[in-house]
Amino acid sequence: MRLRYLCSVHMKNKDEKSAISPRRSEDYPEWFQQVIKAADMAENAPVRGCMVIKPWGYGIWENIQRDLDYRIKITGHENAYFPLFIPLSFFEKEAKHVEGFAKECAVVTHHRLEEHEGRLIPTGKLDEPLVVRPTSETIIGESFSRWVESYRDLPLLINQWANVVRWEMRPRIFLRTTEFLWQEGHTVHAEESEAIEEALKMLEVYRSFMEDALAMPVIIGEKSEGERFPGAVSTYTLEAMMQDRKALQAGTSHYLGQSFSKASEIKFCDQEGQVRYAYTTSWGVTTRMIGGMIMCHSDDDGLRLPPRIATKQVVILPIVPKPEMEEQVFAYAEKIAQDLRQCKFYDYPIEVFVDKRDKRGGEKSWEWIKKGVPLRIEVGPRDIESNAVMVMRRDAPHKEKQKIATDTLTTEIPALLEAIQNNLFAQAKAYRDANIRRDIKNLEELKAFFTPSNPDKPEIHGGFVIAKWCGDPETESLLDELKVTIRCLPIEQSKTEGTCILTGKPATIDAVFAKSY
Amino acid sequence: MRLRYLCSVHMKNKDEKSAISPRRSEDYPEWFQQVIKAADMAENAPVRGCMVIKPWGYGIWENIQRDLDYRIKITGHENAYFPLFIPLSFFEKEAKHVEGFAKECAVVTHHRLEEHEGRLIPTGKLDEPLVVRPTSETIIGESFSRWVESYRDLPLLINQWANVVRWEMRPRIFLRTTEFLWQEGHTVHAEESEAIEEALKMLEVYRSFMEDALAMPVIIGEKSEGERFPGAVSTYTLEAMMQDRKALQAGTSHYLGQSFSKASEIKFCDQEGQVRYAYTTSWGVTTRMIGGMIMCHSDDDGLRLPPRIATKQVVILPIVPKPEMEEQVFAYAEKIAQDLRQCKFYDYPIEVFVDKRDKRGGEKSWEWIKKGVPLRIEVGPRDIESNAVMVMRRDAPHKEKQKIATDTLTTEIPALLEAIQNNLFAQAKAYRDANIRRDIKNLEELKAFFTPSNPDKPEIHGGFVIAKWCGDPETESLLDELKVTIRCLPIEQSKTEGTCILTGKPATIDAVFAKSY
Repeated sequence: MRLRYLCSVHMKNKDEKSAISPRRSEDYPEWFQQVIKAADMAENAPVRGCMVIKPWGYGIWENIQRDLDYRIKITGHENAYFPLFIPLSFFEKEAKHVEGFAKECAVVTHHRLEEHEGRLIPTGKLDEPLVVRPTSETIIGESFSRWVESYRDLPLLINQWANVVRWEMRPRIFLRTTEFLWQEGHTVHAEESEAIEEALKMLEVYRSFMEDALAMPVIIGEKSEGERFPGAVSTYTLEAMMQDRKALQAGTSHYLGQSFSKASEIKFCDQEGQVRYAYTTSWGVTTRMIGGMIMCHSDDDGLRLPPRIATKQVVILPIVPKPEMEEQVFAYAEKIAQDLRQCKFYDYPIEVFVDKRDKRGGEKSWEWIKKGVPLRIEVGPRDIESNAVMVMRRDAPHKEKQKIATDTLTTEIPALLEAIQNNLFAQAKAYRDANIRRDIKNLEELKAFFTPSNPDKPEIHGGFVIAKWCGDPETESLLDELKVTIRCLPIEQSKTEGTCILTGKPATIDAVFAKSY
Repeated sequence: MRLRYLCSVHMKNKDEKSAISPRRSEDYPEWFQQVIKAADMAENAPVRGCMVIKPWGYGIWENIQRDLDYRIKITGHENAYFPLFIPLSFFEKEAKHVEGFAKECAVVTHHRLEEHEGRLIPTGKLDEPLVVRPTSETIIGESFSRWVESYRDLPLLINQWANVVRWEMRPRIFLRTTEFLWQEGHTVHAEESEAIEEALKMLEVYRSFMEDALAMPVIIGEKSEGERFPGAVSTYTLEAMMQDRKALQAGTSHYLGQSFSKASEIKFCDQEGQVRYAYTTSWGVTTRMIGGMIMCHSDDDGLRLPPRIATKQVVILPIVPKPEMEEQVFAYAEKIAQDLRQCKFYDYPIEVFVDKRDKRGGEKSWEWIKKGVPLRIEVGPRDIESNAVMVMRRDAPHKEKQKIATDTLTTEIPALLEAIQNNLFAQAKAYRDANIRRDIKNLEELKAFFTPSNPDKPEIHGGFVIAKWCGDPETESLLDELKVTIRCLPIEQSKTEGTCILTGKPATIDAVFAKSY
């Protein structure tokens, strides 16, 4: 069962109609926008670079929050909330940090509006401008400097769910928006080793969440120097492959050393009575994961939602051939919905919607296909008679239906949802693995691999190249003209010797090269 | 059981020590700050008027969200997310609205920072300033104008959990902060009657939530004209009495008529093919409820948390007389914790914390009293022998312990939590009802009732006065010198005739008069 539909949805006969226009192969970025529109997930807001997350998209974020919040809490973290505004003087405390974020800060300069010659203008100028948080290390650091006094107060393990703002010149919905939603973890430790362990532990929490819940395979690794978070000692990342074979950085975890504890004066008295600077970490994932999940799983007919984070997992479509049958069919559909809502999938009640709208069945069915609902169940008078219903999987060819006896639904439906979850992961992993190249030896071959055959009509091309790298930061600029970057140095290193793909020198580091979002 | 401790905690012998200094009777506002500090719930942020919500306080907000979100969803609403920033031109569309909020708006005017003579200054001036949302009617209205086309799209029932900013000149933690957290519901309806029904339905959702979950009795009613939300046709409110007998407006629900649908062009094509303006509502509650909950239930020893929203409901205190007993006692305590976590209270697993910290038992016990944990359980070697534990209720005198057989804990603890929940509500209601006066006849008596005997040392005084009012908006200014306002016109009106307390004229309207937060 698990691999039955593997790859089936990644191909479609050229002449077959698809619900989304353009198709992935025709114009991948535009296909992405159209999938979001057809699924009614989100839209661009009238405020430059911002988005409105509509209920179908926000439901996914709520399920992401529910799942990830649980994982963050069972690893010992507590949630708290810190101010949206950061005084400029705090923000300036860590030099690299401010340098990294200065160009994308929304700045509050006034605290009232007054009418002046018929127009409203900002008045009440602030003595010190406030930065709308692009991330919260400096404002949280100020609290931590007061909360931490002794080694007994450590480790301090805090998480925050919040909105953040990074002014975006080239916004793309879910992927790069001026305002986005995220969680940011901030922790303080007595020892360097504990802080590094924490950063890696949360990287693993993210990996298991992305693979188990989003069904999105990721490569975890460390960023090279040029790609580090401003102020971090080490930045760890999770890199997923989208269906255009580009990499998406799906989350990051930072070991911050003492940069921020020195900037914010986070000191503690150790067991020997010595006052020392602490070691800190921070880690975050954002609504960008929704963009990654869309681009990882969806097809030319629209969204495909992994059941574990789907807004609705099952939609029941009552079929009413004659008006006088409506009451009976609706009641039967509601009965099935009630039964399914009593059973659990992935520890939560199954979310079922009965679509009683006055629309043609085919039209409704296509709406739910485009919205990516994992399972559709048709219920009509004949099904009632035969005590069985027709079930359709979103990850199967649309015409394929399976008949399931009504009294087995409460075991069959959770099993089918599990099968779809596994299938989406297997498909995404097979696609990624098929597009990882390990045999590319030098810059010339790399260039050939990453060059589209027709630059005016960039088809889907390239992939991930895993190759040796000498580790010299200056060599990274050799990749600039290819628009390729080192995505990460995977945590799992082969430890073999070889030659650097960029310089030909002896090298031992494995690195992932790719184009990226 | 239910009324056993009624009023017991509202009195304390003058010579007895209390954990919070000052006591309520000595300096109520300062007592409030000290309760928050002693419970480690929140603190003032270094950003003017903002607060940091610490884990113990944020846990309460998370439980409020979980409960209220469920109530909002089962009444048919869906969550979504709209931008933090509102372009000034949108904000200006509804005249009364902008007039009401202009004096408290944080305004973003620049989108980057640049170094200039060694200092960072805001650059990248925006063509149009952005207001940080003080509320979202105008930005959500813009989306709604595109989402609503036909009567088939109605009602549109949306909710948002978000942070909002209203510049506050006299901030008070939880009660009035420049940034606060809330939910804001926004709905669109075809008919006026449906919109009014919606506003009243959500008022009832809030009432039941506040009374059932926060154990805080409220009077629901309509605001008089002067107290209406800027732009609303009717504002409905929930008014709770704090222990200083002042009123706290704990939430509001607004029927907005067509003001905002006209400002935002929310129009629909009705069943007759006519294009008409829709009717809208909005309704919200905030982190202010936490402030209300604190002031309603806490005593001179600190916080008292209603079990249904408590961050932790049970704390287990292992008693270890000799180090060699530690392992056994800790294991026994953990076993009890595990058993309790398996049982449910108010539909959720009981939150239990085993306090193994290396501190004296008395010190720990006082910490949890100040943090308001509903139940403390002591477990020592003697308890293990006798297969029973000592249980202490936060709403009982602190020295009072009850012995409970270990094998009955999973039924006894949920029952005790329920009893505490009911007792807190009963106490709060008894206190409120004892301080409602219905016999005050005129302005002079009102003045006497609301005047502290020694104005330099304002003790707890006054209360709620329910009396007749003629309804003339101009008469409200007569209350100004008393610092009293009409809190609401209760939904339940006696419909009797009488004389207006302010003017002596014939009057039928029942009104609630009080000082307020």
